[in-house]
Amino acid sequence: MSNKIGEKFQITSFGSSHGTAVGAVIDGCPANLELSVEDIQKELDKRKPGTSSVTTPRKEADEVQILSGIFEGKTDGTPITGVVFNKNQHSKDYSMFKNTPRPSHGDFGWMTKYGNYDHNGGGRGSGRVTIGHVIGGAIAKKLLKTQGIEIISHVTQIGNIKANENNLDNIKENIDKNPVRCGDLDAAGKMEELILAKKAEGDSVGGIVETIATGIPAGLGEPVFERLDGDLARILMNIGAVKGVEIGLGFDVASKTASEINDEYYINDNHIKTKTNNSGGIIGGISNGMPIISRIAVKPTPSISKCQDTIDLENMENKEIEIKGRHDPCICPRVTVVAEASTAIVLADHMIRSGFIHPSNLDI
Amino acid sequence: MSNKIGEKFQITSFGSSHGTAVGAVIDGCPANLELSVEDIQKELDKRKPGTSSVTTPRKEADEVQILSGIFEGKTDGTPITGVVFNKNQHSKDYSMFKNTPRPSHGDFGWMTKYGNYDHNGGGRGSGRVTIGHVIGGAIAKKLLKTQGIEIISHVTQIGNIKANENNLDNIKENIDKNPVRCGDLDAAGKMEELILAKKAEGDSVGGIVETIATGIPAGLGEPVFERLDGDLARILMNIGAVKGVEIGLGFDVASKTASEINDEYYINDNHIKTKTNNSGGIIGGISNGMPIISRIAVKPTPSISKCQDTIDLENMENKEIEIKGRHDPCICPRVTVVAEASTAIVLADHMIRSGFIHPSNLDI
Amino acid sequence: MSNKIGEKFQITSFGSSHGTAVGAVIDGCPANLELSVEDIQKELDKRKPGTSSVTTPRKEADEVQILSGIFEGKTDGTPITGVVFNKNQHSKDYSMFKNTPRPSHGDFGWMTKYGNYDHNGGGRGSGRVTIGHVIGGAIAKKLLKTQGIEIISHVTQIGNIKANENNLDNIKENIDKNPVRCGDLDAAGKMEELILAKKAEGDSVGGIVETIATGIPAGLGEPVFERLDGDLARILMNIGAVKGVEIGLGFDVASKTASEINDEYYINDNHIKTKTNNSGGIIGGISNGMPIISRIAVKPTPSISKCQDTIDLENMENKEIEIKGRHDPCICPRVTVVAEASTAIVLADHMIRSGFIHPSNLDI
Amino acid sequence: MSNKIGEKFQITSFGSSHGTAVGAVIDGCPANLELSVEDIQKELDKRKPGTSSVTTPRKEADEVQILSGIFEGKTDGTPITGVVFNKNQHSKDYSMFKNTPRPSHGDFGWMTKYGNYDHNGGGRGSGRVTIGHVIGGAIAKKLLKTQGIEIISHVTQIGNIKANENNLDNIKENIDKNPVRCGDLDAAGKMEELILAKKAEGDSVGGIVETIATGIPAGLGEPVFERLDGDLARILMNIGAVKGVEIGLGFDVASKTASEINDEYYINDNHIKTKTNNSGGIIGGISNGMPIISRIAVKPTPSISKCQDTIDLENMENKEIEIKGRHDPCICPRVTVVAEASTAIVLADHMIRSGFIHPSNLDI
Repeated sequence: MSNKIGEKFQITSFGSSHGTAVGAVIDGCPANLELSVEDIQKELDKRKPGTSSVTTPRKEADEVQILSGIFEGKTDGTPITGVVFNKNQHSKDYSMFKNTPRPSHGDFGWMTKYGNYDHNGGGRGSGRVTIGHVIGGAIAKKLLKTQGIEIISHVTQIGNIKANENNLDNIKENIDKNPVRCGDLDAAGKMEELILAKKAEGDSVGGIVETIATGIPAGLGEPVFERLDGDLARILMNIGAVKGVEIGLGFDVASKTASEINDEYYINDNHIKTKTNNSGGIIGGISNGMPIISRIAVKPTPSISKCQDTIDLENMENKEIEIKGRHDPCICPRVTVVAEASTAIVLADHMIRSGFIHPSNLDI
Repeated sequence: MSNKIGEKFQITSFGSSHGTAVGAVIDGCPANLELSVEDIQKELDKRKPGTSSVTTPRKEADEVQILSGIFEGKTDGTPITGVVFNKNQHSKDYSMFKNTPRPSHGDFGWMTKYGNYDHNGGGRGSGRVTIGHVIGGAIAKKLLKTQGIEIISHVTQIGNIKANENNLDNIKENIDKNPVRCGDLDAAGKMEELILAKKAEGDSVGGIVETIATGIPAGLGEPVFERLDGDLARILMNIGAVKGVEIGLGFDVASKTASEINDEYYINDNHIKTKTNNSGGIIGGISNGMPIISRIAVKPTPSISKCQDTIDLENMENKEIEIKGRHDPCICPRVTVVAEASTAIVLADHMIRSGFIHPSNLDI
Repeated sequence: MSNKIGEKFQITSFGSSHGTAVGAVIDGCPANLELSVEDIQKELDKRKPGTSSVTTPRKEADEVQILSGIFEGKTDGTPITGVVFNKNQHSKDYSMFKNTPRPSHGDFGWMTKYGNYDHNGGGRGSGRVTIGHVIGGAIAKKLLKTQGIEIISHVTQIGNIKANENNLDNIKENIDKNPVRCGDLDAAGKMEELILAKKAEGDSVGGIVETIATGIPAGLGEPVFERLDGDLARILMNIGAVKGVEIGLGFDVASKTASEINDEYYINDNHIKTKTNNSGGIIGGISNGMPIISRIAVKPTPSISKCQDTIDLENMENKEIEIKGRHDPCICPRVTVVAEASTAIVLADHMIRSGFIHPSNLDI
Repeated sequence: MSNKIGEKFQITSFGSSHGTAVGAVIDGCPANLELSVEDIQKELDKRKPGTSSVTTPRKEADEVQILSGIFEGKTDGTPITGVVFNKNQHSKDYSMFKNTPRPSHGDFGWMTKYGNYDHNGGGRGSGRVTIGHVIGGAIAKKLLKTQGIEIISHVTQIGNIKANENNLDNIKENIDKNPVRCGDLDAAGKMEELILAKKAEGDSVGGIVETIATGIPAGLGEPVFERLDGDLARILMNIGAVKGVEIGLGFDVASKTASEINDEYYINDNHIKTKTNNSGGIIGGISNGMPIISRIAVKPTPSISKCQDTIDLENMENKEIEIKGRHDPCICPRVTVVAEASTAIVLADHMIRSGFIHPSNLDI
């Protein structure tokens, strides 16, 4: 199994839901970036469960410790290790899942591929491993901020309820005001109602998360195989529950003509801009200086208490399953934090790879 | 610039539209695979332009030569180099594009990032570089066929015209019967009409290409960062003009509940299957043995003869542009070949990485 | 900074001498390998200082904790994280080294390259970071043992004192009987005397460490750039203090003719062997089934209490330095453990890469 | 098989002795480097055989063609492909080697590992594949020259004949004046005599090649696993026939004390230097600004006409072999060119990786 991503800014993730700890080693962050435990903790606090009506009521403190990589309040170029020790994880009996794959859940693949599967709480297949992503993303965001780059993810759709478009300032202001992390407060209310209704039914619901990155210079990414859009698509599709990724107009391009959607250039105050941003900030694999906009399709959490058909792998026979427990009736609000982190990791990596950030030393 | 993709089955692509040659080195193909020039040529023939009413009328022979890697009709484990020498490429004057980026075309990124930009026919940003993908894909397909894996790509939408669903055998039969490479012959006729209408207007139109891979074993891909869906999303998003990637239900999951779309397991004749395949053959990053299904959103070719606004980079002033020439009014039919090749490359790579194909020697 | 090595069996090392912890994430170990804390601790105990007259008298407990990757006593395919928390490391004042590079010590490079340098006890440049190597190596050795592969490193020279050649069984028996870890007990006594004499002078002395790996199948390594000898040379040269690497006869080949040293093949009981092993088990980058034999040249520890000339980087002026403290007067005995670990890491990686060990699951 | 080396400046080598062509794709060279066919050809001319009494009398023209990567006389950031088509390679019958491994020759590993082995002239195991190294090295040298870095390799020992030390200017002047490429003309004469004597006996002889790189900035390389000395050791050990690698004093450190060999710092005209360069320009894995000095041990060419014992793999029985043909009686003179190229490739890669050369564009 390989658990790393990134070329120059590289995350190696480790740990599982019910093991000793989860965390990540972040290698390749240049020296001299001011970095504190709080920079990471505040991102983890956005991800952690038990904070609202629409997420699982499980309580997890998720306090991070930094084991390496900081000297006198700054990175020193050496690998940064962030760890969250798991607590109170052994309260439940998961033995029923040992040989019984849950429909649309990753456990079948694990059992088949690795043989020895930690079935407790999803093991390493648990959403809890995204703690590693968020640790890496927090550092990436801090690094990108030194270059004027900011990233924000928000929910634009839950079930059939769609948010109205909003400007970036309003989105930023609104997402912390509602548990769905939606940028449109009217839609947010309806989304919350829908999620609670599905929760009451023992069901769950999907949605869409959009990510906007601003302050990106033109010239990030490489044009054939290490394209910025390809790398973003990969890391976003790698998030559990994601089944689709779009950049810019995304699937809407299929029904359009070039004359309708081509982004025409113009010069504004000696800066090159495009009149529209249908390309979502990336053309031909390379950033063009406009905001980078992506959207991901997030499926409904597969763990539901409704009765489903499945199989018993040990006896190779059909059986039924009802998955009790405190599952997220909609994972989208928490996915926003992971999408932000994932986007930041790719952008930090490419900023170094493309020579915008020095690979060893931020002061050079 | 990095021009390679894959970990064990690795493609290094080279060349540009109007340079001496385009091609690829395929490294990591195990020894003892029967492979001929024809295996590669037949795939290139599907990709090459000038073969129908809906592609560019440019004629390119695209004859491949193999420079290395085959001994006595079989691969010998050494890198396979396939080259297509460019012919008659210098007939046109491209100097007008030297400092004038075309709207929604990759050239702006190249000029900005590399400084020295081969503006003739798009240079290395040309769709012509996908010859390297197709060479690699042809070898990957041959390798996968030894394991019972087949891959087919077809057009499911052009503009607002959508193909009806069809079974795989019909799709395979139909795609070679129409220039759009659509699996539904009724829709294909309407698609062709639409493309020709847009061509007459000096415009172009987008669409959707679906890829189906069958015969995949359960257990391909790794669950966190080197997931099969992530790697597919990357290589598909890397195809020029692609703005969105879906696996299985894709963006439709956003409006669904788990009880509607979860894929329930059952045992059929001692084989594990799922009743539905909404996951598109991949759950938690790992294949589950069902067909792998992806869809990509392909934007309309940005090079159109309609007048557009752009800029003069040398004088930093606004100007207009009309891009004359024999451009594809819809690139989707040719993208099917590249999508097939790209999917094959990722699957071949993961078949080796996951231990289903021996890394050195197919006879072991 | 990149802190990983290996392609399929991959070590990501982290931590520094006086930070919170040192350790490593081992990614790519197949599932179902029996592995305990003791398997790792026993190797760390061989490496740790303070155990004999010829190493530093510093006491470090070096107790490892496993944070992830083991389920019910076996690896489960997920990354294995081993950590040693540092204890009692802040007793000394290292401020004199902040801007004063020590002759032939790595600190000058760190100051120059990263700017923010943890000067306490050598920071991440300390030999203490080889704890990460040894954790990785312990797992690699356990994995290799399932395939009948064993690795042993021993001291063959200290200063001008050379060990006599000995058979492998005697070497194994002898190295634990003397503090120098030499396979020849007579030489070991003289080596110990020499080290103690140099220690008394406030000086240190170099030596040679040989590593022998047995049970290697023919066919490990790739013939051009990912050769087994190249990968061994890299990881061995990467050990601090190493200035030379040999395989087989090594530098002695320079004065020989082919007729003197070519390894002639013969068939013995239906097995292919060579009459001599001057190639040290690797020809043309690929193992030939004979034992793999390497030797490394280890320089004398550069930290000595004798007065030396150096510079003050802050004021850019010449100055003198005497490095007090409890340094190893000869690092060779402890390097044996790191050489063994490093060799094991490369061999485990290539055993997986070459298809001798399944990449995901040892039970397949 | 993997045939690439380098991270940012990356060589993918392909081809075999008797196939259609040999060559390499060089990916990651920044745009705007002036580069001509002659820059590459002049290095190939130094490597090619048939030019003196001490190399094989085989005649090979070795004319390189560039297929991609140059636009208007400069690199444009895209991959550079250099190819040498093989000519007149099929004159000889090599069938006797099909199942008969030559002692100390790489063919046994190939047969065992890949099954399908091109036995003609060594196939891809032939020294002829170093044409790819030299193409890559020629580009690397041109790139390094823009930064004031120069690299020279010379023979310092053949059999028991050792060159006297000489200053760099004399070495440069002398190596082109003698067929051995030795920097000491007196020794060169004796070396030539020895080689011719061994040739007359149907035997071959080994030697040592030293490489000196000047103009290196302090700060190249990373301190734990991607060290500059480790990467140099790997690429040098990867050269066929090399059995040992030293940096600086190399194996002589074993018998020294720190007070004898530590490199003391001093300030000279506001520049930091070391009084001695026993470290060979690299300490703790990072360059210190002094010349980088390596030495490699080159074994005698294993193909000799003297009778040797070997085996028949098909019938699994012992047999004898006499390898007739025009082999190099000493490969050291030609290895100098490959050592220079290999060193240049590693240094160019690290100059980009460490931020001394911009990754995309030399003009930035």
